[in-house]
Amino acid sequence: MLHFLYVIAIIAEAMSAAFSAGRRDMDYMGVVIIAWITALGGGTIRNLMLGHYPMTWVEHPLYLILTALAALITTFSSNRIYKFRKTSLILDAVGLVVFTILGCKLAIQLSMEPIIVIISGMVTGCAGGIMRDILCNDVPLIFQKEIYASVSLVTGGIYVMALYFFGSEFHFDTLLAFVVGLSLRLLAVHYDWSLPKFTFRDDDK
Amino acid sequence: MLHFLYVIAIIAEAMSAAFSAGRRDMDYMGVVIIAWITALGGGTIRNLMLGHYPMTWVEHPLYLILTALAALITTFSSNRIYKFRKTSLILDAVGLVVFTILGCKLAIQLSMEPIIVIISGMVTGCAGGIMRDILCNDVPLIFQKEIYASVSLVTGGIYVMALYFFGSEFHFDTLLAFVVGLSLRLLAVHYDWSLPKFTFRDDDK
Amino acid sequence: MLHFLYVIAIIAEAMSAAFSAGRRDMDYMGVVIIAWITALGGGTIRNLMLGHYPMTWVEHPLYLILTALAALITTFSSNRIYKFRKTSLILDAVGLVVFTILGCKLAIQLSMEPIIVIISGMVTGCAGGIMRDILCNDVPLIFQKEIYASVSLVTGGIYVMALYFFGSEFHFDTLLAFVVGLSLRLLAVHYDWSLPKFTFRDDDK
Repeated sequence: MLHFLYVIAIIAEAMSAAFSAGRRDMDYMGVVIIAWITALGGGTIRNLMLGHYPMTWVEHPLYLILTALAALITTFSSNRIYKFRKTSLILDAVGLVVFTILGCKLAIQLSMEPIIVIISGMVTGCAGGIMRDILCNDVPLIFQKEIYASVSLVTGGIYVMALYFFGSEFHFDTLLAFVVGLSLRLLAVHYDWSLPKFTFRDDDK
Repeated sequence: MLHFLYVIAIIAEAMSAAFSAGRRDMDYMGVVIIAWITALGGGTIRNLMLGHYPMTWVEHPLYLILTALAALITTFSSNRIYKFRKTSLILDAVGLVVFTILGCKLAIQLSMEPIIVIISGMVTGCAGGIMRDILCNDVPLIFQKEIYASVSLVTGGIYVMALYFFGSEFHFDTLLAFVVGLSLRLLAVHYDWSLPKFTFRDDDK
Repeated sequence: MLHFLYVIAIIAEAMSAAFSAGRRDMDYMGVVIIAWITALGGGTIRNLMLGHYPMTWVEHPLYLILTALAALITTFSSNRIYKFRKTSLILDAVGLVVFTILGCKLAIQLSMEPIIVIISGMVTGCAGGIMRDILCNDVPLIFQKEIYASVSLVTGGIYVMALYFFGSEFHFDTLLAFVVGLSLRLLAVHYDWSLPKFTFRDDDK
């Protein structure tokens, strides 16, 4: 089930990445590369941090094909797909939460400490989007707007606590983290929640 | 032979990187670091993706010295060297194709699947240039202009197919990929070929 | 002793990173992430290059908490802390030199060649700041201003030579590299030293 949601999520991430690439007038090859990095980059960075090989996409090259196709289809019928951007926001939220939980699960398999489990979830959920924004030459969105990384943090925290208190029976830990994380993200998007910002200007500039 | 071309290629990449750094008014240390990242970064990222250690430049520190010297010499006699920029375009094309083929060969040694072999070639050929553009605060050129990553894709594809159909006897696979890839790149530069672009603007912005 | 200075240094780096994040109006989560990447990123990149696991912060998650707290405290009392920016320049210089020496020591443990030992020091000392600048969408400062990477190069060079000529008795190698590196950096800041720049403009643009 989580695996099925993962495949949906990387496709949704690839499609939203294609729109970002289109805003920067990239060519088709650039669109595909941005889609790959956005959809599969978070897990890749997490694996690098934890020293876990092989990469997901090296083991399952099919994911490369799926995400490339998703990006190209978006390119060819962007206007039609753009109409579904509300749907894509939901899929993106599902992606964030699913990526986060999968990142936590991997770190637990590798017997990491709780805080590293949560960081592993955050890296998996957020690093792809950060790299997309760097490659599109923006200050990463998630540092400035909406509670995105924070949702990932909360999702991971709930997952770790649920696993600690209730164990993984009936996948209760996964379900609880999924439901709370997803709700939080959707509410944040709907009500335009954001964390307070830290704005600093040098006196002498 | 390929090894000799590799050394020529990293030197050419280091020199072109020095010009990029000069366009951003970097100091000599910055020029050298950009040259290292451009010339040796692609192979480094590829090794990270595949979990292959040690890095080429850790095994052969001489490459660090060669590329640093190439970058500094470019800095000191930039006007004289700039006259040879047509030559440097050819060397850059040789570099792209040689890096790609070496990336493919490594992935084959590691028994990767064909699509990963091609990706390994693309990462080796393109990631250095992408990092150079990020560090110079540009949207990476290869996502927007010319068929650069695409040449790498085609070169890798031909290499994999030639190896599959004809085997590696007489290095026919390498030669075919080299000749076709290089011709494609030089034609693309000469005739200013480019892939179609995906341009997207939000309706409601 | 070096370990104590390391902890001081990551805290100082996290605080200076928080100011950078504040100049880009990041939210609290963004501030913390930038602080982590700046303070712990250099060692992480070095470990990736050398294939050395686990990462420092995976082994000592406490560092994640310390740097997050340092960044948040900076955020909440930025004006008070900003008054101590001269102190923070000194701590930043200590950080650069300590990171560099620790990077050299790790590479020596792994039996790397002298030039790789020096590079390992430079990566440890500088990569965090480079990533901070990329994430804040700037051309990395250290490529353009002040002798920062150069101090790291000199510190590493002195360390390697002192170790070679005098051995590590009484930690003379470490002390000499620390004193010379720190003095050089502080003098460079005080007298506004900088390396010559390479400025290049295309004739035909």
